[in-house]
Amino acid sequence: MSAPIIVLVAPQLGENIGAAARAMGNFGLSELRIVTPRDSWPNPAAQAMAAHAAGIVDNATIFDSLEEAIGDCRRVYATSARLRDMNKPVVTARAFGEEYDPEMKTAILFGRENSGLNNDEVTQAHALLHIPVDESCPSINLAQAVILVAYEWFQAQQEHPLVTNENDAPAPMHELEGFFTQLESALDTVNFWKVMDKKPRMTRNIRNLFLRAEPTDQEVQTLRGIVSALRRQ
Amino acid sequence: MSAPIIVLVAPQLGENIGAAARAMGNFGLSELRIVTPRDSWPNPAAQAMAAHAAGIVDNATIFDSLEEAIGDCRRVYATSARLRDMNKPVVTARAFGEEYDPEMKTAILFGRENSGLNNDEVTQAHALLHIPVDESCPSINLAQAVILVAYEWFQAQQEHPLVTNENDAPAPMHELEGFFTQLESALDTVNFWKVMDKKPRMTRNIRNLFLRAEPTDQEVQTLRGIVSALRRQ
Repeated sequence: MSAPIIVLVAPQLGENIGAAARAMGNFGLSELRIVTPRDSWPNPAAQAMAAHAAGIVDNATIFDSLEEAIGDCRRVYATSARLRDMNKPVVTARAFGEEYDPEMKTAILFGRENSGLNNDEVTQAHALLHIPVDESCPSINLAQAVILVAYEWFQAQQEHPLVTNENDAPAPMHELEGFFTQLESALDTVNFWKVMDKKPRMTRNIRNLFLRAEPTDQEVQTLRGIVSALRRQ
Repeated sequence: MSAPIIVLVAPQLGENIGAAARAMGNFGLSELRIVTPRDSWPNPAAQAMAAHAAGIVDNATIFDSLEEAIGDCRRVYATSARLRDMNKPVVTARAFGEEYDPEMKTAILFGRENSGLNNDEVTQAHALLHIPVDESCPSINLAQAVILVAYEWFQAQQEHPLVTNENDAPAPMHELEGFFTQLESALDTVNFWKVMDKKPRMTRNIRNLFLRAEPTDQEVQTLRGIVSALRRQ
């Protein structure tokens, strides 16, 4: 059984990275990936705050881009305080724990302390992971958000671990990314966007649509085949 | 409807007090009581970490003893990583949220960062509040423990707030404390303990027994009457 991977996107404070690692350890998570941390790495403040979970910080992997960090994952959740104007499923932290499937390598993305994840980053996820909060004081500290998700995962695993059919597993993200790149390049060629200002938003909408489908490896190959075939015309 | 009161017992770091206040604000809690904080109060570090919840820190009340801090509460939970050798009900954070009764003024006790609550402090509670964790890394940061309890309370309130019959409400703690003091003094008089080394443990066991019963105001009066009557003999 594999536990979800925690991905911190552009975290600012080493203290928060360390506190997030400690929170992971409290609830049985061990794999930490960090995309472009603001400060240099290794970060002594992260080590100090991790306490007994220093091993999680030691073994953390640093990535230059979110795409690389989630390339091998088959399901990706983006934590978000705000509900975005995107056609993407929204699950609560509790529902995430309940629907978690150990056969699918899963990443959970957490954004910057001051501004969270941007829309392009959220777009790369299959679903939004939402923590219902009191609206008068909605800003949750980074490590606090990590512990709530880790906690819900751990509690759900105690109760009812799920296993599904491996053949139905969604394709890993690097395959989907390959498809998106091919598709968008093809659309560039045919001047699909017309007004280039609209490309970023249209691109996001398209990615969201395919991500909702959670295509399998075989289906991604089919999609790539379709684009290739159309392009050759 | 009243939300539970968070009671920090002898907290060491202002940063943790502030982070706990922020966590409270995220999930709709507002009343913070602090028993003998290590550092002087007000504490600028607590203010800084509280972020948008600074008002909770400003309005926190400081107490010289746990007895005073919980005197007006009718139900008291002691958070504890360890399950103690005490005959006291144990509820998980989730079960706490589900059984919470807004008609009963409720306090949740959190201990020192380095050593938690001692046995005498735990004895003053009706129940242990336990957060199931991964045993390889069980030590939860103070503010992280606060947010998990606050989170569970908030989620449960969204779903199914409970209300019970006010006549059945357990007596406030200061009444129980009065009864315990009277009882223990009476037992001193009759040399009940025999070996004085055993008094602390026996006292705890007796208190735990009565606390499990959650006696009402009327029942506490009855108990006091019994002790008085026996003593007069």
